[in-house]
Amino acid sequence: MNALLDEVLVGTLSSVVDGQPWSVPILFARDGDRVLLHGSTGAGLLRHLSAGAPCCLTVFSLDGLVVAHSAFNSSANYRSATIRGSVSVLSGEDALVALDALTDKLIPGRVSEIRRNRAKEVAATVVLVLPLASDNWLYKGRTGGSSAPDEPSEAWTGVVPLRLTAGAAVPDDWAVTRPVPASVASLIANHDPALSDGPQHR
Amino acid sequence: MNALLDEVLVGTLSSVVDGQPWSVPILFARDGDRVLLHGSTGAGLLRHLSAGAPCCLTVFSLDGLVVAHSAFNSSANYRSATIRGSVSVLSGEDALVALDALTDKLIPGRVSEIRRNRAKEVAATVVLVLPLASDNWLYKGRTGGSSAPDEPSEAWTGVVPLRLTAGAAVPDDWAVTRPVPASVASLIANHDPALSDGPQHR
Repeated sequence: MNALLDEVLVGTLSSVVDGQPWSVPILFARDGDRVLLHGSTGAGLLRHLSAGAPCCLTVFSLDGLVVAHSAFNSSANYRSATIRGSVSVLSGEDALVALDALTDKLIPGRVSEIRRNRAKEVAATVVLVLPLASDNWLYKGRTGGSSAPDEPSEAWTGVVPLRLTAGAAVPDDWAVTRPVPASVASLIANHDPALSDGPQHR
Repeated sequence: MNALLDEVLVGTLSSVVDGQPWSVPILFARDGDRVLLHGSTGAGLLRHLSAGAPCCLTVFSLDGLVVAHSAFNSSANYRSATIRGSVSVLSGEDALVALDALTDKLIPGRVSEIRRNRAKEVAATVVLVLPLASDNWLYKGRTGGSSAPDEPSEAWTGVVPLRLTAGAAVPDDWAVTRPVPASVASLIANHDPALSDGPQHR
């Protein structure tokens, strides 16, 4: 599960608001045995969770579509994690350190290339921790090809692998002549379309 | 929003179970003004929704990471939709037609290449419809580069575009000599890594 949480950048954070389900996509980072979340102090759902409401973070990677000899046998290859719990709110130096960890997960090494967050920036940010305990998460997944047909079929079957890949970095107007930094190169390398994971089965 | 729902294959379906939030990733398809969902009749969350519990389907596409001159100004380019409501359950011919629509969205044209679903397969499948009304969804998004620095900075800034791309199809052992069908070619073409969306801003 840690590999999944370290690879995926965005999850879906759910809670119960006025008895109704509510979910939003959110950037996250695993930091040891905790998941870090952040957002604007104005974000309604994060305020709701800060006040103690239970939440659920669902993270998945769609790794491929499994094309079988029938629609019924077709499927998806995926990995998913659902983490339940209540968050705690970080402040001051703890929040600053957590925000650096979050930034360096999302854009590897970026923290060393830019100035530190300012106190007023940290104050404008809600930083939440969702603990990873031994019993508050569920991991599921599927890999491999389609199940062998139990009936005569000449249909092609197999897997179409899917992966989140990066395009070339697009500089802002004022940064066109500046070299692409190591952090951005790492981010792109982590999502290199030329990287083949090889056949997913056989 | 329709373009987003038509492009993305998996969303996160949330509900409230025993007062607690619960969310799972799920394949889905838009079919006109309704969203189709399906799963095993054994799937707990789908049974819960079939019994009338309110739900929320959250769909997003992470389109890029926005690398700014500070961590605080960094961001993500994305599109997201959150659809709330209660589902209705399809059966018989309605379920069969909906399952075909779902299959043809996920693997374009596959239905014409394979046998139809059998009655017992449809009976083993829960097919749910979440309506798209005028007032039960929220669409959000961000595009473009980083905000111009309001302070002296020599940092590189810009966007790293991200996209879900397909690798080469991997046939099952028994299908190695069979030609890749049009459906799989379409699926791969829809997720072609060579396709450039071009610069996302400027």
